Amino acid sequence: MDGHEDAVWISRFDASELHRRAAAVDPGLPLAGVTFAVKDNIDVAGLPTTAGCPDFAYLPERNAPVVQRLVDAGALVVGKTNLDQFATGLTGTRSPYGAPASVFGGGLISGGSSSGSAVAVADGSVDFALGTDTAGSGRVPAAFNGIAGIKPTRGLLSTLGVVPACRSLDCVSVFARELSLADRVMRVARGFVPEDPWSRRAPREARPAGRPRVGVAAGLDFFGDSGQEKAYARFAGDVTVDVGPLLEAGDLLYRGPWVAERLADLGEFLTARPESVLPVTRRVLETGLGFTAADAFRAQHRLQELRAAADRMWERIDVLVLPTVGTTFTHDEIAADPIGRNLILGRYTQFANLLDMAAVTVPNGFTEEGRPASLTLFGPAFSDDLLMALARSLPPEER
Amino acid sequence: MDGHEDAVWISRFDASELHRRAAAVDPGLPLAGVTFAVKDNIDVAGLPTTAGCPDFAYLPERNAPVVQRLVDAGALVVGKTNLDQFATGLTGTRSPYGAPASVFGGGLISGGSSSGSAVAVADGSVDFALGTDTAGSGRVPAAFNGIAGIKPTRGLLSTLGVVPACRSLDCVSVFARELSLADRVMRVARGFVPEDPWSRRAPREARPAGRPRVGVAAGLDFFGDSGQEKAYARFAGDVTVDVGPLLEAGDLLYRGPWVAERLADLGEFLTARPESVLPVTRRVLETGLGFTAADAFRAQHRLQELRAAADRMWERIDVLVLPTVGTTFTHDEIAADPIGRNLILGRYTQFANLLDMAAVTVPNGFTEEGRPASLTLFGPAFSDDLLMALARSLPPEER
Repeated sequence: MDGHEDAVWISRFDASELHRRAAAVDPGLPLAGVTFAVKDNIDVAGLPTTAGCPDFAYLPERNAPVVQRLVDAGALVVGKTNLDQFATGLTGTRSPYGAPASVFGGGLISGGSSSGSAVAVADGSVDFALGTDTAGSGRVPAAFNGIAGIKPTRGLLSTLGVVPACRSLDCVSVFARELSLADRVMRVARGFVPEDPWSRRAPREARPAGRPRVGVAAGLDFFGDSGQEKAYARFAGDVTVDVGPLLEAGDLLYRGPWVAERLADLGEFLTARPESVLPVTRRVLETGLGFTAADAFRAQHRLQELRAAADRMWERIDVLVLPTVGTTFTHDEIAADPIGRNLILGRYTQFANLLDMAAVTVPNGFTEEGRPASLTLFGPAFSDDLLMALARSLPPEER
Repeated sequence: MDGHEDAVWISRFDASELHRRAAAVDPGLPLAGVTFAVKDNIDVAGLPTTAGCPDFAYLPERNAPVVQRLVDAGALVVGKTNLDQFATGLTGTRSPYGAPASVFGGGLISGGSSSGSAVAVADGSVDFALGTDTAGSGRVPAAFNGIAGIKPTRGLLSTLGVVPACRSLDCVSVFARELSLADRVMRVARGFVPEDPWSRRAPREARPAGRPRVGVAAGLDFFGDSGQEKAYARFAGDVTVDVGPLLEAGDLLYRGPWVAERLADLGEFLTARPESVLPVTRRVLETGLGFTAADAFRAQHRLQELRAAADRMWERIDVLVLPTVGTTFTHDEIAADPIGRNLILGRYTQFANLLDMAAVTVPNGFTEEGRPASLTLFGPAFSDDLLMALARSLPPEER
């Protein structure tokens, strides 16, 4: 293991160990010799799992099943990457291991919470990386670093051996520079894990008969960022849909009782070791204390209505394309308003898991100001292959 | 409308009105002239919906969609039946409109919460009745009155126009003396209702290839009732399964934070009009106040694990058969311990909706003491037709 001088890595295997393992890989395996990084809330045997909180750290004995599948396919774990503590945040600035920077410079944040994983892929340190995505953590940092981010359907990749954020919503995600590699990784990583109660068997996918109907949204809030607005306008869909119900669902996650879902697992640690938790993370988590069980059920009932609205949307379109983020921020801008601007970053991501959607994030060129732009393709549960195929078919000039 | 002298009815249409409607029914309709009762937490246009609480009552303008489907098929609503207040309870003794008695006499309770609906069917006042079932309210009173009770898969019959108990678990249920009529009613009543966010589209049912594998349980607690124990032992299954995970799931409903789901809808009324709610009902509902949102999510996480265990059980068997109740009670016995004995009544019913099961309750003869015995057949979601077919194939001597 070595240090985390650029705030991207929390721990790494020794180079000699990596060489030894690389030499031992069967070259006939589907991912033989492909290197990957693992977000430090996913267990890798032999490296501590910190979840971005040194006092929380433990040394797992086994790889998480999703990691093990990749290793069994010949891929090589390089190390564990930085993240917003407890995967709570979308900025990449909430970690005692430092705040990674976007590979595009200009003082831009890396995005989070899978900050280190996205940067390690974007700067070429590894071929691909695993992240996690509860509210957008597998998509926002892809957007800030010009790479692809795959947010699979909940349960398609096992979350066993992952430090829970919101258990009912957590997904393992995949970052890669090219969708072709992301697709190969997904085919290895996915699959039902009987010991994982959140694992789901994928039904046979019902593909649309003809060309997929692509929905876009009008009147989105870009928070004054005309560059991002123009970048999104370059993408032409078939149908304009109302995303109001999606945005309302998203608000339940960070502004509503779902914050308390994080406490279901972290509450005990937070109570026992409050000083071990970053002040901003503590402040976010503690908002969950204010909700009663009746509040939680009431929000779930409202969510059910919003899910029905989303289901009706999927009768009109097969895929929805939105900007991944409405605007981008620098480290200074996040420091000035760490919670408010975090909410802005999640505006077009945080509904996906609550509404049981799959998502694929792809680069969408740059704004006039030179900031990265990005699109996310959404589909209903188990539309993962359709989204991947459509993303791969987008002309490079559109991205 | 007339009175509720036998505690079965809360309101009824005038005889002249019924005669007028009967004369107008198209005799070619599938349920032409078949009479039915509706539990008084389900809207019937022209009669108040009380939910067993006079101060809560309102006059609905429209039939609940499930009632409308039956009316459209030629069935005749006779009136609204008594229930445990807010459908909270399994005894049939928690209502200001009186406590109905089992048609078998001997001081036996009717069972609840769909008390009046079950008795109205058992005593021949109507051909069938609608109840609701959150924790067993569509099964326990069937058991106490020697009739069939169909507890469909959640969402198969719309709950729009039903006063919510636990919205995420509530089902509309069907009582009939004969399964053949129950089957005809179910075919009319079921169906997706787009305006109801809890309505579900039934997938094509995957029937087992050969004879269904029938599971039974060993070592059940009959609470000292050897008569019920012997009655259950008369039924021979193929495989003995462990129902421990089911019973643990059931405990979450009345002993855990799911009580708070009732407060999500009723909390406001309870706070505003505490004196309008029966003391026993208030006592039960108020236990929901003690749970936080984190408690609710934690219980849901545990439930997910228990669901996975139930899914594994469905790999070994197609149908599970349990006693509907472990023992029966008289009014005096319930009065002596209204909450503890209510929990006993729910022991083998209350897990079904949490674990997304369908259920069919059928009579199983009598105990040596002359008390009614009953079996419930359980299957996974959307196994409704299989359960009905299997229940209809049981030899009468076994029932």
